Amino acid sequence: MKLSDIYQPVQEDLASVEAELKLVSQVENPWLSELLEYSLKGGGKRIRPILTLLSARSYNYDIDTLMPMAMAVELMHLATLVHDDTIDNSAVRWGRPTINKLWGTEQAVLLGDYLFAQAGELVAKTDNLAVIKLLPHTLMIITSGEIAQSRSAFNLEQTREHYLHRIASKTAALFILATESGAILSDAPKEGVRIMIDYGRNLGIAFQIVDDILDFIGTEEEMGKPVGSDLSQGTLTLPAMLLLERYPGEDNPVKQLFQARGGSQYVSQAIEQARNSPIIEECFRVAAGYCDHACQRLDRLPDTEARRSLYELADFIINRRV
Amino acid sequence: MKLSDIYQPVQEDLASVEAELKLVSQVENPWLSELLEYSLKGGGKRIRPILTLLSARSYNYDIDTLMPMAMAVELMHLATLVHDDTIDNSAVRWGRPTINKLWGTEQAVLLGDYLFAQAGELVAKTDNLAVIKLLPHTLMIITSGEIAQSRSAFNLEQTREHYLHRIASKTAALFILATESGAILSDAPKEGVRIMIDYGRNLGIAFQIVDDILDFIGTEEEMGKPVGSDLSQGTLTLPAMLLLERYPGEDNPVKQLFQARGGSQYVSQAIEQARNSPIIEECFRVAAGYCDHACQRLDRLPDTEARRSLYELADFIINRRV
Repeated sequence: MKLSDIYQPVQEDLASVEAELKLVSQVENPWLSELLEYSLKGGGKRIRPILTLLSARSYNYDIDTLMPMAMAVELMHLATLVHDDTIDNSAVRWGRPTINKLWGTEQAVLLGDYLFAQAGELVAKTDNLAVIKLLPHTLMIITSGEIAQSRSAFNLEQTREHYLHRIASKTAALFILATESGAILSDAPKEGVRIMIDYGRNLGIAFQIVDDILDFIGTEEEMGKPVGSDLSQGTLTLPAMLLLERYPGEDNPVKQLFQARGGSQYVSQAIEQARNSPIIEECFRVAAGYCDHACQRLDRLPDTEARRSLYELADFIINRRV
Repeated sequence: MKLSDIYQPVQEDLASVEAELKLVSQVENPWLSELLEYSLKGGGKRIRPILTLLSARSYNYDIDTLMPMAMAVELMHLATLVHDDTIDNSAVRWGRPTINKLWGTEQAVLLGDYLFAQAGELVAKTDNLAVIKLLPHTLMIITSGEIAQSRSAFNLEQTREHYLHRIASKTAALFILATESGAILSDAPKEGVRIMIDYGRNLGIAFQIVDDILDFIGTEEEMGKPVGSDLSQGTLTLPAMLLLERYPGEDNPVKQLFQARGGSQYVSQAIEQARNSPIIEECFRVAAGYCDHACQRLDRLPDTEARRSLYELADFIINRRV
């Protein structure tokens, strides 16, 4: 199933979100405008705004309130990517040079700051104190998770709990922001809000696990960035953890990579070994488990087209290759 | 006059702000906690929270609402400094190593993001939509100004208007946030809010001009950072502009520095030339003009101790050497 089929119930409004996002680059400062334009026309799938709109669709759906929120979750996402790429010194994202590669660290840090602020300004437009409070709270969780990730680089002493905590912070928190805000802004009953929070959290965790799998099995062309990026940066993801568990010898390539704090030959070996083992399938099973969990209570939502889309989105996330 | 004498009308509450700021570092993530603790015990003068409290003191002063706001303006300030130092690759601030120097770019970018978010969370606690909207708006202005500054580095074709626009964005915007929020949160009448906005803007501009002067006439010991930092980074400030105007020959050190895009001998020459000319005094006169302008309409505020402090603060800002 294609993503565009899935978001069909909110297709028109998503197009409006896209159009409004383009307008964000229309600012007086020509340098800032250039940076914004480039970063807004990247290859994002807009999954987070889709989630906000779909989460609201079963209730009191008011696009005027939802529009700034849907834009804000996407801008938050873009801001974190711009800062991540800068921090990781990444040269390529979505098959094109990153902001930091083209304009340098300075511009990338400032652009990220601007995008965070723009997200804040948009959320404030909802005039809804509950969702206004969610935004900074989410950013605090994300940055705290990123700090934990960077301080754990090349550390072999990490448990699966550490991993889950990290991806819940760095990825699922923003998915929760997307779904929870959609539910709140459409006056969903308390149970509906709770269900959408759970959906966002579990979907976000599944999404990140699949991302981490794709870093092993994807191609650079599909992903628009180099394969093995996580390993190269010393980030211990689920496939790497399972490799360590299953092949505990001293010649384990992940172990060697982490002990040497680098070495592209180990990265290639680890990818090769994972691809030729049942580990990848096992990781997909773990991700699928989170998707199942995400959908577990969706049957308590009103039976709408949008609800069907939420089920389909969980399927899409497991089967995606980009 | 000492700063502590000036903020006497809000002294106790400022001590509470300070105590509450310390608590910001009490987070679960030990690495984040370490970064926060270090950055919060820096040598800041806390002028922005002082402004928030003093701006409210003449009206309906409620410390419970003002406390999160006063903390937020300081955290915003700290966040911009952490990112600025990272961008500029500065090694020293307040006479001690910077965050980026001690922990690297990655941690510094993430800490700055966290501080912005923490400021947002605090402002949201005021439950006041008007001030909530001011925060992201201010950050957008600041980053836009910083982008303009970095893109204008080593550019000799800048007018005094460019300079004023830049410092209004990068410095005065945060002073306005401090004063305007204090006025709004204390239910100041519309005219009172306008007066405090004007005060903040003009005081902020004066503050930055003095900062730019100190970069020429201060000592490293007083400032806690190297002399001539602005020139080294190619930032054209008022003293440098006046040097260019007064000594238009090809051997003007600022001209040579900017054309060569560096050269510490030119930095020393420019500082020497400015110190031995009437330029510094002229810059102080410009700054004093903004301070006068800041105070111009203060007589329309209620005649309180706090109003006297606002006058004194303007004096302090002109006469400060740190």
